[in-house]
Amino acid sequence: MESLKKRILIDGKVADGNILQVSSFLNHMVDINLLSNIGKEFAAIFKDCLPTKIITIEASGIPIATMCALELQIPFIIAKKYISYNLTDDVYSTEIYSYTKQKSFNIIVLKELINQNDRLLIIDDFLAYGTAIKGIMHIIEEAKATLVGVGICIEKSYQQGASELLSQGVNLHSLVKINSLENGIITFK
Amino acid sequence: MESLKKRILIDGKVADGNILQVSSFLNHMVDINLLSNIGKEFAAIFKDCLPTKIITIEASGIPIATMCALELQIPFIIAKKYISYNLTDDVYSTEIYSYTKQKSFNIIVLKELINQNDRLLIIDDFLAYGTAIKGIMHIIEEAKATLVGVGICIEKSYQQGASELLSQGVNLHSLVKINSLENGIITFK
Repeated sequence: MESLKKRILIDGKVADGNILQVSSFLNHMVDINLLSNIGKEFAAIFKDCLPTKIITIEASGIPIATMCALELQIPFIIAKKYISYNLTDDVYSTEIYSYTKQKSFNIIVLKELINQNDRLLIIDDFLAYGTAIKGIMHIIEEAKATLVGVGICIEKSYQQGASELLSQGVNLHSLVKINSLENGIITFK
Repeated sequence: MESLKKRILIDGKVADGNILQVSSFLNHMVDINLLSNIGKEFAAIFKDCLPTKIITIEASGIPIATMCALELQIPFIIAKKYISYNLTDDVYSTEIYSYTKQKSFNIIVLKELINQNDRLLIIDDFLAYGTAIKGIMHIIEEAKATLVGVGICIEKSYQQGASELLSQGVNLHSLVKINSLENGIITFK
């Protein structure tokens, strides 16, 4: 997606620890026109997979999931981060390790929100090690529902998430693929 | 907003501790058509205030802020919850006490995202004690920007947040006002 690439080059910042910051247009402040185009792009890619619901993890995937849901006219589920460990029987849960924050957290989804006939499309802002996506895939599997695709705004192709998902046969589409952030320079695949 | 009232009566659940759960259509799974109508409603209410940006707190206000931003064609800011206390000079921050979770947390906004000419519209899903809204108002004040209004989906009118904000002259609009959840029965104002 050329407009997203351009925006990353203009307004993206590379911070310590190989982190690409998109705070001014994608995940802290959000440019609504860019977001709307991202939603249209994902809808065009995935509409033929006939998703019944979108699923994302709070928080930075939510704006993107909202706009995809609007374009596809289907509901979306927000997997919730859960600090406490008093998990009840009525939720699916799984533990996810965040490399960015260097700690684990649980995500939960109410069981009543997913049924066996659901065809789920996962949407998120970043894909690096893929731990969050694999966590949601685990919940979809537990619910005996079908994963129809994974839509990512920015893939860090030099980390293993994308290649692992593709090798598992996941229908992965990333709008922008980054090959390197070395020395603060953004190079695309 | 009649359609939101109806939906709350049909699909809302009153849980222990006077909590109204709207998990199946507003803040865990989101009905995109209802959300779209909420966005249109807020845009109609606030467009004459000429907001330049919307601001909300992660996570459950984000879908609503997204749809309002789309209708008003302005960017939106997500105030981030922050666990660590290593706050840097480039962020506004304030501490908020959550009555639901019975603990305090910090929210932060990058200073570069708000300037003195900004006219900010706060959007959130619930208003009870108003601590989150007052936290954002504090950040807007620190940034020397202007607050043009506060848009809330569901106001718990029996808690003090709404009356306190109105007595301070805040331009508050709530789509649905709840008078009581006593004995598990939802009564509107």
